[in-house]
Amino acid sequence: MGIVVQKYGGSSVSTINKIKNIAKTLINKKEEGNDLVVVVSAMGDTTDDLISLAKGISKNPDKRELDALMSTGEMMSCALLSMAIRELGYDSISYTAYQIDIRTSGQYGKCLIDDIDVTKIKESLKKGKIVITAGFQGVNKNGDITTLGRGGSDTSAVALAVKLNGVCEIYTDVDGIYSVDPRKYKYAKKLDAIDYEEMLELSSLGAQVMHSRSIELAQKYQIPIYVGLSNSNIKGTIIKGVNKMNLESKPVTGLATSDDDIAVNLKEIDGNINILSNLFETIASRKINIDMISQTSPINGKVNVSFTVPKDEQEECMSIIKNFSNERNISIDEDITKFSIVGIGMKNTSGVASKMFKLFSDNNINVKMITTSEIRITCTISQKDKNKAIQIVAEKFYL
Amino acid sequence: MGIVVQKYGGSSVSTINKIKNIAKTLINKKEEGNDLVVVVSAMGDTTDDLISLAKGISKNPDKRELDALMSTGEMMSCALLSMAIRELGYDSISYTAYQIDIRTSGQYGKCLIDDIDVTKIKESLKKGKIVITAGFQGVNKNGDITTLGRGGSDTSAVALAVKLNGVCEIYTDVDGIYSVDPRKYKYAKKLDAIDYEEMLELSSLGAQVMHSRSIELAQKYQIPIYVGLSNSNIKGTIIKGVNKMNLESKPVTGLATSDDDIAVNLKEIDGNINILSNLFETIASRKINIDMISQTSPINGKVNVSFTVPKDEQEECMSIIKNFSNERNISIDEDITKFSIVGIGMKNTSGVASKMFKLFSDNNINVKMITTSEIRITCTISQKDKNKAIQIVAEKFYL
Repeated sequence: MGIVVQKYGGSSVSTINKIKNIAKTLINKKEEGNDLVVVVSAMGDTTDDLISLAKGISKNPDKRELDALMSTGEMMSCALLSMAIRELGYDSISYTAYQIDIRTSGQYGKCLIDDIDVTKIKESLKKGKIVITAGFQGVNKNGDITTLGRGGSDTSAVALAVKLNGVCEIYTDVDGIYSVDPRKYKYAKKLDAIDYEEMLELSSLGAQVMHSRSIELAQKYQIPIYVGLSNSNIKGTIIKGVNKMNLESKPVTGLATSDDDIAVNLKEIDGNINILSNLFETIASRKINIDMISQTSPINGKVNVSFTVPKDEQEECMSIIKNFSNERNISIDEDITKFSIVGIGMKNTSGVASKMFKLFSDNNINVKMITTSEIRITCTISQKDKNKAIQIVAEKFYL
Repeated sequence: MGIVVQKYGGSSVSTINKIKNIAKTLINKKEEGNDLVVVVSAMGDTTDDLISLAKGISKNPDKRELDALMSTGEMMSCALLSMAIRELGYDSISYTAYQIDIRTSGQYGKCLIDDIDVTKIKESLKKGKIVITAGFQGVNKNGDITTLGRGGSDTSAVALAVKLNGVCEIYTDVDGIYSVDPRKYKYAKKLDAIDYEEMLELSSLGAQVMHSRSIELAQKYQIPIYVGLSNSNIKGTIIKGVNKMNLESKPVTGLATSDDDIAVNLKEIDGNINILSNLFETIASRKINIDMISQTSPINGKVNVSFTVPKDEQEECMSIIKNFSNERNISIDEDITKFSIVGIGMKNTSGVASKMFKLFSDNNINVKMITTSEIRITCTISQKDKNKAIQIVAEKFYL
């Protein structure tokens, strides 16, 4: 008997009937003797609907108000799920971020959780209640409503598991973590387990299964996360530390692609490192995530620099860059797919990169930018080459 | 230069375009030198949509969770309106009940406002912000989200006007208070002013323009309320104290009808006053509003009692009554229209009731129950007679 923190994604609560089914599942789990704390996302497309309301008001809606608006989606699903449990004769209570003081800091729309006051939750569990909490939202020290960014409910769940010393289960519309997105590669294999680091690389690279901050948090506190289908007996995937895993010889565990970025190319800018670091600092201070950065060696003191930026931050980013470079020298490449392979095993296996680039070259796939980490190789390629690249790499590395 | 509290109803903010228009209106008002605090209802049919979601879960949804659910509608419109003002380059901030501690007590779904902490509002006004607050909602001492009942945003607005020592303006989809609902009687006259008492009787009798608790509150603190169309130059109606009014000789100011109740008839119950007072106390303790009560003189110690109950509380009410009376002796009459005429002038004019009942009798309209107050006469009639009754009474009393 312990505390189980379960998170249900938007697709698991997208209709009243699905909510009723989750309520039944929760009651079964409760009857097995578990104390249950449940984090819910907004129903189905609610968050998108709220955003499009805001976009009807402004192309660039005020961020404090946008957070206040978006937080309502989770409040709704939360109250409905609690209602559904009570309707079945079991005790339940819903809490918003305000009610359990999910304290956040940082910028609206991408706040970090500083702390959660779990007193009320513990009291409610003691009374036998199933506790339902609103994911994705928090409150900053000014009392403003904040949100944690897309997929933030995963992080809410892990944070609650940390504070409650419980286990964490993420229920979603996929039945686990695959080596490659099965929609993109039909022979993709489901993994029984994956290391935090690998999952982190995969999820920050566009494998949309999990919010990457949730993995970081789980890794920090060594909380294993189960990821699986809601209302199903199909076995999912456990995300845990490598020391707990049966390390296989396979160097590459997963593959991920993302079309969510554009590449910014700056031509012939002053190679003075101060200017570049200034530029990147300014961009970072606006909390824009620059991802891949590559720079060529200076010629006559001038360098060419390329980096990728999320599409939806292109505008804000460009307004910064214009202060650092002549507009003539800025070009944007919208035709990029970020293509990454990930594996703890890469640390001990050489030649993975060269093997992949040989494959690309044999198949006439042009590689534009390259960045690597100890357990990851990422490059950008043209979007038309994406599917071919997935097929040949997945096959070659037995994914 | 003073503080103006304006309330905009759901139909005034039912679309993004309407919200943008309200934003412009507010900025104009602000530029005239007013400090503006705005209370908004949920957009259009949002509250009904939320209720139907809840009804999909349960015929009788848990009331704490229902309040939590329903409160989200106002949070949304609040954030959107503030965004719209900021989009036009003016400063604005939205506050939920939590953020300004709209403290309530009483039962979920019909809470009363105990207090509001206006510190944050005053600070924001000082900084030149237009303050947008969520109507209809509050927080009780347990930290639960509560709502004030249908139309509760009016009460939120008056309460804020009281606490901020401001004036109160209610903007809605009608251009003022009419002697008779103009949809029911096309010759109805709009009133320039109406006394609190009269308005109170009218609104508690089914004239849906205003939340009756808001009138009580305004009367208690002698805050005049302006009621009119949003975004319009058409002059509306001021609700204020009779001592400020030019008292006319006309005994009847208004007429209201309501089909929202059913009549409960209890036959041959024990005439012991203790039993009846017990019954009514029990019903009242569940916060069910019994409205009209009439009782016939006892025969052999037994009396017949009739009273009206809101349709949506019929079920709860019946479960109580069954403990007090044999089921055989309980009958329900669903075919009733409450028909009321109201006027401060009635205090000084005799024969109003007899004049009305003579009219009914001349026109073959059967009167079922009758109750009266100093300034009001209410009876129930069959619903099929409603329109005829409105026409003949409105004409006779020059409404």
